Amino acid sequence: MKDPIDSALSRREFVQAASAGALAAAAPALVHAASSSGAADKAAVLARIPAMHAENLKRLQEWIALPSIAAENRNFLQGPEHMAALARQAGFADVKLIPTSGKPGVFGHLDAGARTTVAVYFMYDVKQFVPEEWSSPPLEGRLVQKEGLGAVCMGRGAVNQKGPQNSFLSALLAFKATGRRLPVNLVLVCEGEEEIGSPHFGQIVETPEVLARLKSCVGVLLPEAAQQQDGSIQIELGAKGVVELELVSSGEKWGRGPQKDVHSSLEAQVDSPSWHLVQALNTLVEKDGHTPAVEGFFEHAKPLTPAQQQMISTYAATVPEAVMKKELGVQRWVHDLNWQDSLLRLYSQPTINIEGLVGGYTGPGGKTVLPHKAVAKIDMRLVPDMTLTDTLAKLKAHLARHGFADIEVNMTGGYDPTQSDPDSKFIKALLASYRKLGTAPIALPRSPGSWPGYRFTSAPLNLPACGFGLGNGTGAHAPDEYYLIDSTSPAVRGLDGAVASFVECLYALT
Amino acid sequence: MKDPIDSALSRREFVQAASAGALAAAAPALVHAASSSGAADKAAVLARIPAMHAENLKRLQEWIALPSIAAENRNFLQGPEHMAALARQAGFADVKLIPTSGKPGVFGHLDAGARTTVAVYFMYDVKQFVPEEWSSPPLEGRLVQKEGLGAVCMGRGAVNQKGPQNSFLSALLAFKATGRRLPVNLVLVCEGEEEIGSPHFGQIVETPEVLARLKSCVGVLLPEAAQQQDGSIQIELGAKGVVELELVSSGEKWGRGPQKDVHSSLEAQVDSPSWHLVQALNTLVEKDGHTPAVEGFFEHAKPLTPAQQQMISTYAATVPEAVMKKELGVQRWVHDLNWQDSLLRLYSQPTINIEGLVGGYTGPGGKTVLPHKAVAKIDMRLVPDMTLTDTLAKLKAHLARHGFADIEVNMTGGYDPTQSDPDSKFIKALLASYRKLGTAPIALPRSPGSWPGYRFTSAPLNLPACGFGLGNGTGAHAPDEYYLIDSTSPAVRGLDGAVASFVECLYALT
Repeated sequence: MKDPIDSALSRREFVQAASAGALAAAAPALVHAASSSGAADKAAVLARIPAMHAENLKRLQEWIALPSIAAENRNFLQGPEHMAALARQAGFADVKLIPTSGKPGVFGHLDAGARTTVAVYFMYDVKQFVPEEWSSPPLEGRLVQKEGLGAVCMGRGAVNQKGPQNSFLSALLAFKATGRRLPVNLVLVCEGEEEIGSPHFGQIVETPEVLARLKSCVGVLLPEAAQQQDGSIQIELGAKGVVELELVSSGEKWGRGPQKDVHSSLEAQVDSPSWHLVQALNTLVEKDGHTPAVEGFFEHAKPLTPAQQQMISTYAATVPEAVMKKELGVQRWVHDLNWQDSLLRLYSQPTINIEGLVGGYTGPGGKTVLPHKAVAKIDMRLVPDMTLTDTLAKLKAHLARHGFADIEVNMTGGYDPTQSDPDSKFIKALLASYRKLGTAPIALPRSPGSWPGYRFTSAPLNLPACGFGLGNGTGAHAPDEYYLIDSTSPAVRGLDGAVASFVECLYALT
Repeated sequence: MKDPIDSALSRREFVQAASAGALAAAAPALVHAASSSGAADKAAVLARIPAMHAENLKRLQEWIALPSIAAENRNFLQGPEHMAALARQAGFADVKLIPTSGKPGVFGHLDAGARTTVAVYFMYDVKQFVPEEWSSPPLEGRLVQKEGLGAVCMGRGAVNQKGPQNSFLSALLAFKATGRRLPVNLVLVCEGEEEIGSPHFGQIVETPEVLARLKSCVGVLLPEAAQQQDGSIQIELGAKGVVELELVSSGEKWGRGPQKDVHSSLEAQVDSPSWHLVQALNTLVEKDGHTPAVEGFFEHAKPLTPAQQQMISTYAATVPEAVMKKELGVQRWVHDLNWQDSLLRLYSQPTINIEGLVGGYTGPGGKTVLPHKAVAKIDMRLVPDMTLTDTLAKLKAHLARHGFADIEVNMTGGYDPTQSDPDSKFIKALLASYRKLGTAPIALPRSPGSWPGYRFTSAPLNLPACGFGLGNGTGAHAPDEYYLIDSTSPAVRGLDGAVASFVECLYALT
């Protein structure tokens, strides 16, 4: 996914370092866990999975070989057509492409005659990649041995999200292969622009046919590889919203300063759009260089509930601060907070961040120019009940009020916060599935990163939406991305275990 | 030259547009002007110049074919050896390379048994170039026709400074060819790092042998092509000093924030070196976004004298404000000043300018990172009696006082201001030469740009230093740089006229 996986990775990596193997003893054999449900159907389906291992892996490798990259306009329409074919093969009916102003979505449903209907969110696109940076060809999905972990499938999209999605489809194929009916009905909603911020996902969800089907659902499941290398699992009950934008100060829009780069000696005679930008930026945070100072920024920011705070306390106790600090290269948390308070901030506070500064001469050494333009790349993270629209309007009003109405605010992407009710049947069922599978998930109020789940969790759908899936992988957006196939670790599940976890989950959701 | 020509060009271009040809009627024939001095020697030397036209041009083209570029370590030692050979050919004795920590200088002297000794400043290096941007191969020095101007020699270094320097050498060769003695003794001081800010020029000047010779001089002449296309000439009696530096805010030096780029969601938990830089920058200028706010910045800044103000008034009256505004793409001057007051600021005010901002993600769109480092490229322009050392110390003290002691101040180059006494015999002689040559030079207190003339004009030498030379050219640091060879305009001199102007000047300096 665009954003949450990146951020989660930073945190995941220290968990594994700190407590690898801690949960291993608690993990019973899958088949044992499954058979204890007493459902003969489920046992038959689960028993079938190992025999399908080779075809399930091959399907993943073939999918990795076809990268759809929205930012590069790569493999459209091949990507969505392939996605549609995979969905049909897995048993979805009425599978079709949903046109948008951008890349098409894919939609389908699987009516099993069950009482309960569950939506599944897929993405068929992947992040850009630079083959030279990889130790294994990124489109081959080769099996590579990882010390202490086992054989992993390495390739772009392996964990983000083709691997977990393929495992979910493999679970459906196991039902099909054994002639068993699914215990729930399914609605598949898939987009192809997740990696560029899902700019047209709203058009997919709002397509009447899609919306009608979604309204029948109890929740939205995102297949993922949720296990750290130590087997631990954090389940994030939402995500911050995000607004990405550029603040552009230019002589042209300002009506002061030059309209092209001029010699820097002219700074004595001519205004500087760069200083203008610096002064505008300076108004956006308090003296602490951190707290957003945009008027009304916190107006709709809900504090964490005591229950949410408790989740973070529980989580904080499982994660060694020193390892986290080392991993991030950080000596002190903001405001010199202690570990737990810093995590409370991480999960509760909306932010204004400078992603990048670009102005004038950016090469080595100096160049005596007075630049006509300077740009700050900004992201703002939003917590419930802040919205993109309201926050953007507040930023613009703030700039105008402080004398910077000329500074362009060019939004490049974003979405509202996502929040799912931990007391909903859907979330409870997912947590129960994890426990039944022998893991002890730690719930967190939300991801500090962002994903466009608000399309599900906000009106008109108001559905809980949450990731689920055993298995392990890492490297989303990075080289050497992988998804674990044959686990040699007792703590984490490979491909077959991941497929089985989805079977378990589907029964838990009935 | 590194800096003043850049800035001068901006101003020169509108002068030509505004008053082309205005001075043409006042320009008598060169030989007539010369012979009116009554000196038979001078007449003989001047008469020889046209016959040497082809060899003078060929020498320039050969020089252009050998670019020494310090930033690229290109053509060292070939460049200085070629320079030394040119000097020897022109009659300099004891010509030698002067080693420095960087590229070598070239030194020589020409003892004519005259009462007066004059120093000449040369540079043998040129600015980098991108051949694809040129309409004529930059190392060929081809003759190209320019509408309304004549045939120009186009190539890197044509006007900055090989063309004018070659014309000066050609003048010496005309003396040699006619067996005449120079009316003054000469000392040649040449560097090869002017285009990177003359970092080791001090080592050349302070070499005991060089310093001793320079102490015998009445002033330092820089050969240049001083005529605008309308024939007008501004003579700049000094230059602002400059300090170029990078302000670097990093998690590593700060001890706060990350030591590598991390996911932007962590902004809720971790300090941002980018905000830290923004806040530091914000303290450097007043609320007007312009006036330096570094404590004590103006302490040693001398205001313009009434005589200097008068020079600017005279100059302002010759330059149409509207043309200048259009040329620069500027709608308003700083503080909404009128034209003359804006020029008073340009020539009198020290400045702090942002050349560039570079931090975190600088590519298209956004990237959700919290950068570990952000950099502002700054130049400060200094007026007499400010110094680089003092101003840099004040900047560092200011940053420390405001809580930004961690921000690195990495100076990349610079020098003190330069000022020559307009009442010195040397400057008066140059002005007299111009007038005798039929031009009406306008004196300006200084260039708003910078050159390392303080090596001459400050202690221990305290010599006046000034550019001189008829002729025309443009494009220093830009593609299609040229030097006028065969003028079809009555207002400006070609190669022969430029050579003759140096002959005239040498007689005026006796």
